[in-house]
Amino acid sequence: MMASTRIETDSFGEITVPNCKLYGANTARSLTNFKIGDHRDLMPIEVVRCLALLKKASAEVNREFGLREDIADLIVQASQEVFEGRLDEHFPLVIWQTGSGTQTNMNVNEVISNRSIQLAGGELGSKAPVHPNDHVNMSQSSNDTFPTAMHLAVAMETHKHLLPALTKLKLALESKMKEFEGIIKIGRTHMQDATPLSLSQEFSGYVQQVTNSIERVKSALPRVHQLAAGGTAVGTGLNTRLGFAEKVASKLSELTGLPLVTSPNKFESLATNDALVEFHGSLNVTAVSLMKIGNDIRLLASGPRCGIGELILPENEPGSSIMPGKVNPTQCESLTMICAQVMGNNTAVTFGGSQGHCELNVFRPMIISNILQSVRLISSGCVSFTDKCIVGMEVNRERIQSHLNHSLMLVTALNSHLGYDKACSIAKHAHRNKLTLKEAALELGLLTEREFDEWVRPELMISPKP
Amino acid sequence: MMASTRIETDSFGEITVPNCKLYGANTARSLTNFKIGDHRDLMPIEVVRCLALLKKASAEVNREFGLREDIADLIVQASQEVFEGRLDEHFPLVIWQTGSGTQTNMNVNEVISNRSIQLAGGELGSKAPVHPNDHVNMSQSSNDTFPTAMHLAVAMETHKHLLPALTKLKLALESKMKEFEGIIKIGRTHMQDATPLSLSQEFSGYVQQVTNSIERVKSALPRVHQLAAGGTAVGTGLNTRLGFAEKVASKLSELTGLPLVTSPNKFESLATNDALVEFHGSLNVTAVSLMKIGNDIRLLASGPRCGIGELILPENEPGSSIMPGKVNPTQCESLTMICAQVMGNNTAVTFGGSQGHCELNVFRPMIISNILQSVRLISSGCVSFTDKCIVGMEVNRERIQSHLNHSLMLVTALNSHLGYDKACSIAKHAHRNKLTLKEAALELGLLTEREFDEWVRPELMISPKP
Amino acid sequence: MMASTRIETDSFGEITVPNCKLYGANTARSLTNFKIGDHRDLMPIEVVRCLALLKKASAEVNREFGLREDIADLIVQASQEVFEGRLDEHFPLVIWQTGSGTQTNMNVNEVISNRSIQLAGGELGSKAPVHPNDHVNMSQSSNDTFPTAMHLAVAMETHKHLLPALTKLKLALESKMKEFEGIIKIGRTHMQDATPLSLSQEFSGYVQQVTNSIERVKSALPRVHQLAAGGTAVGTGLNTRLGFAEKVASKLSELTGLPLVTSPNKFESLATNDALVEFHGSLNVTAVSLMKIGNDIRLLASGPRCGIGELILPENEPGSSIMPGKVNPTQCESLTMICAQVMGNNTAVTFGGSQGHCELNVFRPMIISNILQSVRLISSGCVSFTDKCIVGMEVNRERIQSHLNHSLMLVTALNSHLGYDKACSIAKHAHRNKLTLKEAALELGLLTEREFDEWVRPELMISPKP
Amino acid sequence: MMASTRIETDSFGEITVPNCKLYGANTARSLTNFKIGDHRDLMPIEVVRCLALLKKASAEVNREFGLREDIADLIVQASQEVFEGRLDEHFPLVIWQTGSGTQTNMNVNEVISNRSIQLAGGELGSKAPVHPNDHVNMSQSSNDTFPTAMHLAVAMETHKHLLPALTKLKLALESKMKEFEGIIKIGRTHMQDATPLSLSQEFSGYVQQVTNSIERVKSALPRVHQLAAGGTAVGTGLNTRLGFAEKVASKLSELTGLPLVTSPNKFESLATNDALVEFHGSLNVTAVSLMKIGNDIRLLASGPRCGIGELILPENEPGSSIMPGKVNPTQCESLTMICAQVMGNNTAVTFGGSQGHCELNVFRPMIISNILQSVRLISSGCVSFTDKCIVGMEVNRERIQSHLNHSLMLVTALNSHLGYDKACSIAKHAHRNKLTLKEAALELGLLTEREFDEWVRPELMISPKP
Repeated sequence: MMASTRIETDSFGEITVPNCKLYGANTARSLTNFKIGDHRDLMPIEVVRCLALLKKASAEVNREFGLREDIADLIVQASQEVFEGRLDEHFPLVIWQTGSGTQTNMNVNEVISNRSIQLAGGELGSKAPVHPNDHVNMSQSSNDTFPTAMHLAVAMETHKHLLPALTKLKLALESKMKEFEGIIKIGRTHMQDATPLSLSQEFSGYVQQVTNSIERVKSALPRVHQLAAGGTAVGTGLNTRLGFAEKVASKLSELTGLPLVTSPNKFESLATNDALVEFHGSLNVTAVSLMKIGNDIRLLASGPRCGIGELILPENEPGSSIMPGKVNPTQCESLTMICAQVMGNNTAVTFGGSQGHCELNVFRPMIISNILQSVRLISSGCVSFTDKCIVGMEVNRERIQSHLNHSLMLVTALNSHLGYDKACSIAKHAHRNKLTLKEAALELGLLTEREFDEWVRPELMISPKP
Repeated sequence: MMASTRIETDSFGEITVPNCKLYGANTARSLTNFKIGDHRDLMPIEVVRCLALLKKASAEVNREFGLREDIADLIVQASQEVFEGRLDEHFPLVIWQTGSGTQTNMNVNEVISNRSIQLAGGELGSKAPVHPNDHVNMSQSSNDTFPTAMHLAVAMETHKHLLPALTKLKLALESKMKEFEGIIKIGRTHMQDATPLSLSQEFSGYVQQVTNSIERVKSALPRVHQLAAGGTAVGTGLNTRLGFAEKVASKLSELTGLPLVTSPNKFESLATNDALVEFHGSLNVTAVSLMKIGNDIRLLASGPRCGIGELILPENEPGSSIMPGKVNPTQCESLTMICAQVMGNNTAVTFGGSQGHCELNVFRPMIISNILQSVRLISSGCVSFTDKCIVGMEVNRERIQSHLNHSLMLVTALNSHLGYDKACSIAKHAHRNKLTLKEAALELGLLTEREFDEWVRPELMISPKP
Repeated sequence: MMASTRIETDSFGEITVPNCKLYGANTARSLTNFKIGDHRDLMPIEVVRCLALLKKASAEVNREFGLREDIADLIVQASQEVFEGRLDEHFPLVIWQTGSGTQTNMNVNEVISNRSIQLAGGELGSKAPVHPNDHVNMSQSSNDTFPTAMHLAVAMETHKHLLPALTKLKLALESKMKEFEGIIKIGRTHMQDATPLSLSQEFSGYVQQVTNSIERVKSALPRVHQLAAGGTAVGTGLNTRLGFAEKVASKLSELTGLPLVTSPNKFESLATNDALVEFHGSLNVTAVSLMKIGNDIRLLASGPRCGIGELILPENEPGSSIMPGKVNPTQCESLTMICAQVMGNNTAVTFGGSQGHCELNVFRPMIISNILQSVRLISSGCVSFTDKCIVGMEVNRERIQSHLNHSLMLVTALNSHLGYDKACSIAKHAHRNKLTLKEAALELGLLTEREFDEWVRPELMISPKP
Repeated sequence: MMASTRIETDSFGEITVPNCKLYGANTARSLTNFKIGDHRDLMPIEVVRCLALLKKASAEVNREFGLREDIADLIVQASQEVFEGRLDEHFPLVIWQTGSGTQTNMNVNEVISNRSIQLAGGELGSKAPVHPNDHVNMSQSSNDTFPTAMHLAVAMETHKHLLPALTKLKLALESKMKEFEGIIKIGRTHMQDATPLSLSQEFSGYVQQVTNSIERVKSALPRVHQLAAGGTAVGTGLNTRLGFAEKVASKLSELTGLPLVTSPNKFESLATNDALVEFHGSLNVTAVSLMKIGNDIRLLASGPRCGIGELILPENEPGSSIMPGKVNPTQCESLTMICAQVMGNNTAVTFGGSQGHCELNVFRPMIISNILQSVRLISSGCVSFTDKCIVGMEVNRERIQSHLNHSLMLVTALNSHLGYDKACSIAKHAHRNKLTLKEAALELGLLTEREFDEWVRPELMISPKP
C-alpha cells in the first residue's frame, strides 16, 4: 500500500507533504506559516502559470549556457504543463505570504522539480535529477522572477481580455452613435435642462472616452513589457551569465508573441513596481470613464414613468423580489460597482507601490492580486455591459421629443439676436408663468413670431454657424 | 535710523532676520531650507495658536515647578497674544517642513521669546530674559507639543464650528421633514419607479444621516481630547517633572472649557496619529452622508421641465454665462465637491498615519492640514447649504402628484391579494400597452374596479399594516 | 433515467436549470446575464448564510402573523440547512450582479423554496407548497433583507473572528511588554538616534494601539447591530405588519446571541450604507495601527548584521530562492500587505457608500465583499502574526546595549544642568570628532567627569523627575 | 466725494459692489452665496489668469468673425493685464462655488468688462462699450472656457515648473550615481542583508525612477493639450462660428508656445475630466517613486550611530527643540509628506472625475485645485530636495565597508560552486556561531581558504559572469 505522505526537505529540515501533491518543503512550510484568508485568497493562478513560462524560457537559455540537455528538457516539459493549467491543484499558497512572492516562486520550482522527477521516473522529493533551486531556479531569484511573472500576467491578460473587451464596447457604442443620428434631444448640465444636442453627439462622447481608455491602457504597456528577469537577487545579475537577461526576454517574446524586452535598469525593476502602478493608473481612468457612462445610461433610462426615460434598456431579469414587474438597470449597477472596486484597488496598489525599501519592494502579491482583479473585472464587465445593455438599448423618441419641446434653454439661440440680458428675461418670464418660450417672447414683445420660428430651431442649435 | 535686520543665532550659528519680525534663527533657517509651495501652503494658523495656548499652560505649570515668576508672566502674556491671533504675521513657515513640526514649534518659541523680551524692554534675539528653548519650551519637545496642538486645534474647531454646523443642517432638514408631512410621492430604487413613500419619510432618512454624523464625530472626540503633552522627546517624559503632564492637561481644560485629559500612553501619542486618523474617519462617513443628500436633492430638483422636478431649489444666482435664465443646484455642487475633497483627504491622512517609525510619526503637518481643511469645509459648507439651499427649498406638488398617479409600482399593494406572479402580469401588461395600472388590471380580469380602488391606495402603502 | 435539467419559471418565462441544483429561474438568469469574473468573484457565502438566517427568523415571525404552520416549518428547516453551510454549492452567483443583491436574495428564496419542496416531497420548481416570493420572501424585499444580511455577517464575523484575533495580538504584545521590562534602549525619532526608553515602553505603545483598535471596532458595532429588516421595498414597511420589524430583530438576536435591534429609520437603512462605511473606518485605523507595528518590528529586526538588529524574529522558513540562509520578516510582510489592502478597500467602500440615490444604495455586493475581506484578513492576519512572529520574538541585548552606549542623544539629560545651547555644543563636538559624549564634554571643559556620570544615566532618563 | 460702492446688475437684479473692485454682480452674488472656507480656499489664481488668456485669444478670433475692432482691442488689453497678474485682487471667489466654475468665468468676464470700460473712460457697471456676456464671453460658455483654462494652467505649470524640477532632480541623482561609482556595499532586501551591489547601481535605480516620471508626465500631456474651447454650453458649439474652435486653439498655441490643439470631441471635453484624471495619475506614480527615494535615503542615513548610517545628509538646521545637536532628514520628510498629499489628491481627483452627468462634469474647481497643488508641491519639493539634500549628500565609506565585510549574504557566490544547500549550511553555521563566512566555511570543511578567497569577491558579485 502506498503511503499517503512523503518527507520533503529544505534548509530548515524535514516536513511532511501529501503524496498526491507535487509541491515540496517550502510550500508545505508556507501552508503552516500563513493560515491567512481562505480559498478566496489564493495567489492568482495567472502568476503561477507565468512563472512557469519563465522557468521554461530560463531552462532554454540556461541550456545555451551549459545546463544539461536532459534536465533542460524535463524542466521545459513540466513547465509547459504548469503553464497550461494542468497542475493548478498543486499551488495552494495564499496571497498573504512573503511580500516578494518567494514562496510561490519556490512552489513553482518544487512542482516543476517533482513533475520533472516524475517524468524521469525518479523519487518525489529527491531533488534529483532536477533540483528546485539549482536547476529550475537556475540564474534566477524570486526577486526577479516574481516581478517578471507579474508583468507577463498583466501583459497577457491585457492583450487577451482587456483590450478586446474595451474595443468591443467601443464598437457597440459607435454603432449606437450611428443608429442615433438625427435624434435631437435636450442637453443637461448641472442636471438641469440645457441647450440641445443630438443623441448621436451624446454617444460620441462615450465613444471618445472608451477610445481614450484603449489608448491609455496601451500607452502604459511599453513599461509593462520590460522584464526584470536577469536581475536575480538585488538587480546585479549575480549568478547569471552576460546575455541571460536579453535572451530570456527574447525567448518569452517568442513564446507569447508580445513585444517583451529586458528592463533597462534591473535595480528599478526589483525595488519598485512603478510600471504596474502606472498601468493601474490607466485602469483607474478607465474606471472613471466607465462610471460616467454607466451613470449616464442609468439616469437617461430612469423611469419608466417617473424619471427621464429617454433610453430604454433591455429587460434582462425580474428586478425586484417584492415589486412585481420592476426592471432595473442592473448592468449599469454591476459596471459601476466594478468601477468603485477598481478605484479602491488603485489606492491599494498606490500604497503598496510606494513602500519599497532599498533593493526590493515586498508588497508584490497584494499588488498583482489587485491589478489582475481590476483587469478581470473591467474585461468581463465591459463584455457583459455591451452584450446585455448597450446592444439591445432602444430609444423613447416620444419622450425625447416632448422634453425638447418643453425646454426653456432653446432661448440661448436668441443671444446673438437680442443679447444675453433680453434672452434672459424671456426665459424667466416663461418659467414663472408656465408659458412656452414662444408665448413668453411674444408676450414681452421682444420679437415677432416669424423671427422666433426662424431663430429658435433645435436642428440649427447643435453645431457652430457657418 | 533703525537697521532693517538683526542677527539671530541658533546652534548652527548666525542668521539674518528682518527687524519687523519677531521670529528667530530656526524660523529664518526654515524659510531658506523649505521654499516649497507658496502662501497657500502655510502651516494652518490654528496649530500655531494652539501651540501658543500650550506654551501658556506650560509656563503656568512650570511656575509651580520652579520657573521664575517674571519669566512665567512674560511667557503667559506673549503666548496669549499669539493665541488671540495678534501676531499671526510672524508665522511664515509652510506645511512642507520637517514632519515633526519642529520648526513651527521653534517659530512659536522664538516669537514668544522675542515678544517677551520686547515686553521686558530687552534686546530682540538676546534670548534673555526669556530663552526660546530653556524657558518657552521648558518641559517640552516638538514631539509632544506639536501633536498636542493638533489635538487642541481639532477639538476646538470641532466644538466651535463643526458640531454647530451639522446641528444647524440637521434642524433645517428636520424642519423640512415636518413641513413635508402628508405629501405622498413615488419612491425610487435603482433610479427606477418604486413603491410610494411620503416626502417627509424621505427627508427623515437625511435627518437620520446627519444625526448619525453628529454622533460619529462626537464618538471620535474622547481620544482627540487625550493630549501628548508631557511625553517630551520620545514619550518618556524626560526633562519634565512628575505630574507635569496631568497639570498641563488640566490647565488646558480650564483654558478651553473642553474635557481634555493627559494621554494614557505617551509612546502611542508620539509615534502615531491614530486618534486623528480615527477622527477623520468620522469626517469621511459624514462626507459620504452629505454626498448622498446633495446628490438626491440635485436629482429631485432636476429640470425644471425635462427632469424629475419634484423639488424647487432657491434661485440664488444666474446659472450660466451663455444660457439665459438657467438656474443650477450650485449649493449641492459646492457641497458634493467638498465631500470629494474630504474623501481624498482621508486617503492622505490614512497614508500619513500609517507611516510612523519607532518613537515618532513625521507626517504631522500634512495630516493636520488635511484634517483642519476637512473640518473647515464641512463646517462652512453645511452652513451655506442650509442657508442657501435647504431653508428656501420648495415642493412642486403638481409634479409629485402626477408622478405618483402614473407609476406602475403601486401594483405591489396587490401582492398580498393576488400573489407576486399575478401582480407582475398586471404591471407588465400596463407597461407594454401604456395603460394605467387599473386599466391593465381590469383588462386582465384579475380583480374588480372596486377591489382595485380599495386595495391600491398610496396613503395605505407607506407603512406596515396594523 | 432522470433528466439532467428541469424547467423553472419566473415573470420572464421559462429557463432551464440543472437538476442537481436547487436554485430557480432568477438565479439561472443571473448566471446568463452576469458572466463577470470567475470563482474568485462569488458573492461571499457569509452573506448567503445570513440571508438564510433572516429567512428563518422571518418565517417564525410570519407564522405569528398567519403564515401556515407547515410552510413555516419547512422554511425554518431549509433555512437552517443553508445557514449551516450544507447547501453552499447552490449559490453560484457573483458579486458583480445587481447592486441591491436582489439576485442573491432570490437565489436564497429559490433554494429554500426548492429545498422545502424537496422536504415536503413535492416537485422542484413547482413553487408549491412553498413559493419563493410569496412565502420565503414574505414581508421582505431584497432592499431590506440584503442590508440586514450584510449587517448580520459583519457582526457575526467581528464577534467570532476579528475581536478575538485583535485580543490575542494585544495579549501577546502585552506579554512581550512585560518580558522586556528593564531593557533600556536608544529611542529613534525621524529614523535618527534620540533619547532612551525601555523596550517595554516601546511595546506599550503597540499594546495601546491594539487596545484602541479593539475599542474602535466595538464603538462602530452599535449601528451595525441595527437591522433594516421590516423596511421592505423603500423603507415604509409596505406588505409587512406592525411589529414585524421589531420581532424579526428580536428573533435574530435570540438566534445569534448578538444585541441586534431594528433600525430606528428604515429609509436611512435602505438608502445608505453609512453604518458599514463607519465600521470599515474602524478597520482602516486598525490597518494604520498594524502597519506601524509591522513596520517597526521589521525595522528593529533588520540585519542580521548590517541593520539595526535589536529584535530577533522567529525563523519560519527559507527566505530566498537564491540567497542561502536568508531569513526574512515574512509575517510583517504579510501583515503590512493586508494593511495596504484594507486601506484600498476603504476607498472602495467609501466611494460605493456615497453613491446611493433616493431610496436605495446599489453598491451593496461590492461593499460587503470588501468589508468581509478586510475582516477576514485582519482576523487571520493578526493570528498568524501573533503565533508566528510575536510569540517567538527575542531580543539581541548585546546590540541594544551597544547602541545605547554609543548614542549622542543622552546629551539631552544635560539640558537642565547646562542649558540647551551648551549641551548642543557637546553633542556636535562629539559627532564631528568621533568622540563619546563624555570625552567631548570633558574636552570642552563644560562639566567634570563626576558630574557627567551622575547626570547622564539612561535609567534616569526614561521617566519624569520626581 | 466718491461713493465707496456702486450698483451692478445681472439677471437677478441689482447688487452693491465696492468701488475699489472691478468685479460685477455675479461675483458679488457668489461672495454672498458661498461663504465657505477662507483665504486658503480661493480659486487658484492660475485658473483665473488662464481664463484671461483665453478671453484674449477669443477676442482676437471673434474680431475675425465680426467683433468690433475697438471692443476687441479693449478686451485684449484688459485680458493681458489679468493674465499678467496685475489685477489679482479682483478675484475673491472660492473654489467651493458652482462646480462648473461659472462664477469664476463670470468674475473674469466682469473684471475684463469693467477694466475695458475704465480704459475707454466709461462708467463701471454700465456694461458699455464692453459687455461681460455679449463681448468678453462671446462664442464661449463657462462649460468650455473653464475646462480650457484648467488644461492651460496644468500645461503651463507643468512645462514651466514640474518638468524642469524633475529634470533637475534626475541630473543631481545622476551626478551622485557617477560620484558613487566603485563603492561596493551590501544590498538589502526585506530590510535584511542581501548580496552586494555598488552604491552607484543603487542610485541608478533612483535615476531610472525619475527618468520614468518625466516620461510619464510627458506621456499624459498630449490629451492635456487638447482644448474644450469652442464647445460652448453642451459641446455642440452653439453660438460659435465654424472654425472658431480651431482658431482659438491656434491662437493660444501661439501665445503660449505650447502644442495646443482643439479637442477632437467637445462632448467628452465638457462632460468629463478624464484627461486630467489621467494626468494626475502620472503625478500619483511620480509620488510613489519619490516616496521610495525619500524613504531609502532616510533609511540609509539613519543614525548617526545607532542606525544604518551609510549616507550622510547635509545638516541644514537644528533638528530638535529638546535634543541638542540632533540633525534630521527633514528634506526627506517634507518630500514624503508631499507624496502622501499627492496620493490623497489622486483619490479626490478620481472621485470627482467619475461624477460627471450627461453633458457636464461639475466637480471642476475641486479637481483643478488638487491638480495644481500636486504640481506645485512636486515641483518645489523636488527643487528643495535636490538643493538641500541630494547635492550635499556624502558617503560614510567606513561604515559601508564594515557592513560589507560582516554580511553573510556573500555566501550566494558559492551557489554555483557548492549548490544552494551546502551554501546554506555555511551561512547558517556562521549566523548561529557568530563566525565570519570564511570561518564557517572552513570549519565545515566545504572548501579551502584559497577557494573561498577566489570565489567570494564582492567586486565580482555585482554583475553577470562573462
